[in-house]
Amino acid sequence: MAIRTSVRQENMSTLNREFPWIQAQRTRKNDASVVRDILKIAEMPGIISFAGGLPSVKSFPVNAFKEGYARVLRNDPYGALQYGPSEGYGPLREMIAESLPWDVNPAYVLVTTGSQQGMDLISKVCIDPGSPIIVEDPTFLGALQTFRLMEPEILSVQSDEHGVDIDSLRRLNANAKARFAYILPNYQNPTGRTMSDEGRGQLVEAAEALGMPILEDNPYGDLWYEEPPPASLTPRNPQGCVYLGTFSKILAPGLRLGYMVLPKVLFSKVLQAKQAADLHTPAINQRVAHEIMNTGFFREHIPMIRSMYKTQRDAMLGALEREFSTGKTEINVTWNRPAGGMFLWLKLPLGMDATGLLPLAIKHGVAFVPGAPFFANGVDRGALRLSYVTPSVEEIQKGIVALANAIKEYALLLKK
Amino acid sequence: MAIRTSVRQENMSTLNREFPWIQAQRTRKNDASVVRDILKIAEMPGIISFAGGLPSVKSFPVNAFKEGYARVLRNDPYGALQYGPSEGYGPLREMIAESLPWDVNPAYVLVTTGSQQGMDLISKVCIDPGSPIIVEDPTFLGALQTFRLMEPEILSVQSDEHGVDIDSLRRLNANAKARFAYILPNYQNPTGRTMSDEGRGQLVEAAEALGMPILEDNPYGDLWYEEPPPASLTPRNPQGCVYLGTFSKILAPGLRLGYMVLPKVLFSKVLQAKQAADLHTPAINQRVAHEIMNTGFFREHIPMIRSMYKTQRDAMLGALEREFSTGKTEINVTWNRPAGGMFLWLKLPLGMDATGLLPLAIKHGVAFVPGAPFFANGVDRGALRLSYVTPSVEEIQKGIVALANAIKEYALLLKK
Repeated sequence: MAIRTSVRQENMSTLNREFPWIQAQRTRKNDASVVRDILKIAEMPGIISFAGGLPSVKSFPVNAFKEGYARVLRNDPYGALQYGPSEGYGPLREMIAESLPWDVNPAYVLVTTGSQQGMDLISKVCIDPGSPIIVEDPTFLGALQTFRLMEPEILSVQSDEHGVDIDSLRRLNANAKARFAYILPNYQNPTGRTMSDEGRGQLVEAAEALGMPILEDNPYGDLWYEEPPPASLTPRNPQGCVYLGTFSKILAPGLRLGYMVLPKVLFSKVLQAKQAADLHTPAINQRVAHEIMNTGFFREHIPMIRSMYKTQRDAMLGALEREFSTGKTEINVTWNRPAGGMFLWLKLPLGMDATGLLPLAIKHGVAFVPGAPFFANGVDRGALRLSYVTPSVEEIQKGIVALANAIKEYALLLKK
Repeated sequence: MAIRTSVRQENMSTLNREFPWIQAQRTRKNDASVVRDILKIAEMPGIISFAGGLPSVKSFPVNAFKEGYARVLRNDPYGALQYGPSEGYGPLREMIAESLPWDVNPAYVLVTTGSQQGMDLISKVCIDPGSPIIVEDPTFLGALQTFRLMEPEILSVQSDEHGVDIDSLRRLNANAKARFAYILPNYQNPTGRTMSDEGRGQLVEAAEALGMPILEDNPYGDLWYEEPPPASLTPRNPQGCVYLGTFSKILAPGLRLGYMVLPKVLFSKVLQAKQAADLHTPAINQRVAHEIMNTGFFREHIPMIRSMYKTQRDAMLGALEREFSTGKTEINVTWNRPAGGMFLWLKLPLGMDATGLLPLAIKHGVAFVPGAPFFANGVDRGALRLSYVTPSVEEIQKGIVALANAIKEYALLLKK
């Protein structure tokens, strides 16, 4: 025993050395999130933040949650607190299938811990190291981070309000078949743009002809302002698409509740990956979401969010118009008019770099996310993402004035 | 438009064909879970199930949850429902660090969606395809499933009440360094055995000398019956170990709430993998667990579970003794005496196969899990796992009589 003690003391002295953990190759693909660092700055007091990707807390139905948790814990406490099936809570899967505007078999609905997990599961099931996948450029940063962990070759296509550049899709698929193309048709993060019905049809047809699966991500589709977006990609070819949906933007993101609609051929492997990932999504939260949906709550709640976000968008469009309308300034800033969702995409004049502008903007009291990290390959350094759903209308107006002042100061600096 | 319609109709006719989804190599490593299939049979009415790995619903503090959710939604609704930090809810991380019986820095505590997710994250960060890892044989099946997705070479060592076979650990490490050894020191799933203090000390010393990290999984450590288990592995060399903990067995598994205590050198990469996996663990559940812990609830709750499970274990040990004590039968069945946890490991007489016994057992009205799937390499076909925490004492007694009858019938069949 005395011998063991002395050995331990000797070892103790070595504990400050780094222990030789060998990290997998895949961890080298991701650097610390640029956006995370920006969000830390954006949360500083006195900064008006257009940087966040957070829904407005005003959209969270606190009372419905109070009633929902109380009811579930009264009526089904053991179901809510015990291990549950990896597929998800049956009645919730049925309700999700019913709520979608095409014929969905609940047997192929998988409840996920946020739609982020859907990307993780599909990456595990469909990506081998080096296998090509296709993304829009720019696209959702969180998806890129998840895909990268499975070490694909990430190829990118241009996309716009019309759709995806089909010719380049064909060219990219000519050498090696992409495992899937990741597409956000509605109010894309980061650009806020929506694809036309015709563009969607062409994309699905081309993908089918190429034998290229589509991973459709639709976090924002319910948040339309004037009219619903065109039909999703998945109903146009259900066996060729995986559909990712979420309750984060219409109920609350803190629940981490999303879902996948899967083609039959993928279901069992994705389910196994789900089981290995976290066994199942928290049972109590699934039941509460089901309770809330079951009351018909969304019928009034979702239109309320739409109306609120539309007001916010209009405030930002109005403020941008006032600050940057031609005639008022010679600085040529352009932006799009999102028809839904949470984001607007702004382009700085030629020669301006959004990452270079950011420190100046923060000096003026406003934050945004530069466009660069949203690009997998090509980079538009002059683009930036503005989120308009969290600040008040007054803050939006004040923040856009601050942004305009920062851009003007940056223009002067660049002239020197 | 007419042309497009006809193209779509033509495509429609092909939709019944399987769309060419290419699945990653890693998905071939896992087959459908044998245990899942068994559990389906075990849930049939009239079957007494020793097959489940579920905690007793009697241990779920429903009232504490009712109060907890109400309080969190009253005091911090927006924090509970908004996106939160990937690391987890700060006060919960601090409370976890405080609750552990060694000096833990909350900065290196990561909240996970069940401790299952901890295995997924470590697999992603530490396993390259083909890299060796070491597990006990047998070990927790869910861990094997998760590890296999990252395609390691799984090597195994023998372990028992003393500890791990150190010589074979050295031999296994001689050719290529294992990325980690996965160890369940307390009341292991499936065997229920606990490692001695001396064995733990020898294991950590050997691992340190070999430069071999340890992944310590401790889901059952709080569920001791007569005396606490020896100190964990991680405090013996914190920078060389990752510690996995969970609230599943002391609060409720349906929350999916676990945690990792990480060495500094791994933290940022594991955090990135966590962010990519599901952004963060549901914020509301983290707050509720913190609320419940904060009231000092565990001080009485955990001893209540210990006492309940001890009664169940004693009932099973008593029933086994009655049925299989030497003298009463010539069938040589042996079993261990778990000092905590949820499982007992039973060995059939030489020549008997637990998988072969199962259909007979079900005919007699009792279910268990054969030991075979818990083995990564060598297989003890005569071993089986009995969970004693879910059935009532009366069911345990009846179930063991049924098991004994099934074994006797099986023995007769084998003699023929």
